[in-house]
Amino acid sequence: MAEILPLRRAKPEDTEIMAVLRQRFGEDLAAVEVLMREHMGSYVAMIPDIGAHIVKAGGKRLRPILTLAGAQICNYDGEHHIALAAAVEYMHTATLLHDDVVDDSDLRRGLPTARVKWGNSASVLVGDFMLGQAFRMMVTAGNLRALDVLSSASSVIAEGEVMQLSQLHNVDMTEDAYLRVIDAKTAALFAAACEIGAVIARAPEPEIEALRAYGRNLGIAFQLIDDALDYAASDIELGKNSGDDFREGKITLPVILAVRRGDEEGRKFWKNVIKSPSDDPKDLETAISYLRKTNALDETSERARHYGERARDALALFPHSDLKRLLLDLVDFCVSRTN
Amino acid sequence: MAEILPLRRAKPEDTEIMAVLRQRFGEDLAAVEVLMREHMGSYVAMIPDIGAHIVKAGGKRLRPILTLAGAQICNYDGEHHIALAAAVEYMHTATLLHDDVVDDSDLRRGLPTARVKWGNSASVLVGDFMLGQAFRMMVTAGNLRALDVLSSASSVIAEGEVMQLSQLHNVDMTEDAYLRVIDAKTAALFAAACEIGAVIARAPEPEIEALRAYGRNLGIAFQLIDDALDYAASDIELGKNSGDDFREGKITLPVILAVRRGDEEGRKFWKNVIKSPSDDPKDLETAISYLRKTNALDETSERARHYGERARDALALFPHSDLKRLLLDLVDFCVSRTN
Repeated sequence: MAEILPLRRAKPEDTEIMAVLRQRFGEDLAAVEVLMREHMGSYVAMIPDIGAHIVKAGGKRLRPILTLAGAQICNYDGEHHIALAAAVEYMHTATLLHDDVVDDSDLRRGLPTARVKWGNSASVLVGDFMLGQAFRMMVTAGNLRALDVLSSASSVIAEGEVMQLSQLHNVDMTEDAYLRVIDAKTAALFAAACEIGAVIARAPEPEIEALRAYGRNLGIAFQLIDDALDYAASDIELGKNSGDDFREGKITLPVILAVRRGDEEGRKFWKNVIKSPSDDPKDLETAISYLRKTNALDETSERARHYGERARDALALFPHSDLKRLLLDLVDFCVSRTN
Repeated sequence: MAEILPLRRAKPEDTEIMAVLRQRFGEDLAAVEVLMREHMGSYVAMIPDIGAHIVKAGGKRLRPILTLAGAQICNYDGEHHIALAAAVEYMHTATLLHDDVVDDSDLRRGLPTARVKWGNSASVLVGDFMLGQAFRMMVTAGNLRALDVLSSASSVIAEGEVMQLSQLHNVDMTEDAYLRVIDAKTAALFAAACEIGAVIARAPEPEIEALRAYGRNLGIAFQLIDDALDYAASDIELGKNSGDDFREGKITLPVILAVRRGDEEGRKFWKNVIKSPSDDPKDLETAISYLRKTNALDETSERARHYGERARDALALFPHSDLKRLLLDLVDFCVSRTN
């Protein structure tokens, strides 16, 4: 097995922030869960089965929390934030079902992926079903601008995934191209999740823009750390196969930096394993030793901190409040998380 | 090769109806095509490439014509029917991209499928992109009820596909279950395409209902004939592999009827080839001989005519007009088409 890198450990308060947020939005989140369960119902048994599997595997509910928080910080007092938050999580979940097919992934959050249990076809189709249900939920919120934001995000996410696919095995991928991919495949949904909270609150444009910028930069930071963790976390910690990106020949920032900062020998190694991805744990070990030698993981964390700062600064125009404090702490969590 | 059954030949006027419709809506359809091309644009080259491939392969544009016709028969005089018609065709195209992956299909409308040329992953992701773009186009029409109709259809289509998947290899599938599948996977979009034309025209409820019923029954008839043609058409005529359903072990009405009306020996044959689908052209030939012996293809056409009649009757409340005549002729085309 590959050695585990001592990536910056999360301080206890870093992991607690998610618990605090979940408690603060407890009632709303419970309503979101009910709505999500309701929309998984079908006369076709396979749908609630797969739905329960992927929704229960459950994740952090980070994206719906962003919608709830965005609405609250803009003083929204209606009910539509619930449907929009559920729709956002459904969009995310549909993406996961398709990503696992595209990436041939076997593990997700410590559980076998739906495609392993039910097959690729079922994963594609149930993903489509969830996307359809996501749009149905959005429509109930009755806000055309929120619909525009979310449907645009839906296109942009897929566009980012296609770009990532077209860059597979391309050892010359630039940092700029990589940023464009994660801006689309990850940050677009974070941005939209925050923005629609402000949109339904009919907040002034600068607040809508601020929340969008907060979400976008938070999303970029989140994905950067995710990509670093893929080379640093053990299977158990991350709940998915570490080294997945390596085995798929997927170029992420740690690799881009290692290639650019490495010596001739290192570059040759990367060229080989990216062109013909390797399953050999020895190759993953070598890769990690190159990442360490070039300081590529720490540098990736540095880049994440940069976007984290931009996320924090984006919130400047909101007055001090408990909630604002929590959203700032959330940035620290995303930047220093270990899972 | 399997013998080609002499399924009812289209009379010349049957195939001409599509040309007449395309001419009548020529200007609108041109605008729909422009909008479709515009929404295929992307900085990721693979997207317009696959988009051009699947959109050019082109099909009949039957569904967008239904939206344009629905709007016109309800005297709509705005511009939003264009975006909705384009969205409907995008939804359909996204479904095709995913279906070809789910069904492992190699040919579509006489061309290699996108998944053969660009791979399954790209087909899944570009399908997702097109679905996102479809929703973006819908949103521009600014009509929440039309959005509700289309997003519901989107869920229902996927639900139907999952049900079909779960019934694969089930020789005991009933005609009712089969109807439920095609009602969802095909008729739901036909129904929605017609309905939204009336919805944006703010037509009275009975007219909206009538157009929905017309589209739904037309869609069922259309799919029944499609399923019969899979055993009757040559590769060249249908532009896709004939016998595809057979090779996949997909149960369609011709098979259901042949199983139920066949003798012991026939039932045994079907049980075997449905449980373990066969690539052997000899088995397809045997299947076709059983279909002929039990009159299953003609009976399937009879069922299609039943739904065709329901589609025709649904239009009764509209006063006589050229357009109504064309929509009635369209039923005849769908019921008697050979491709």
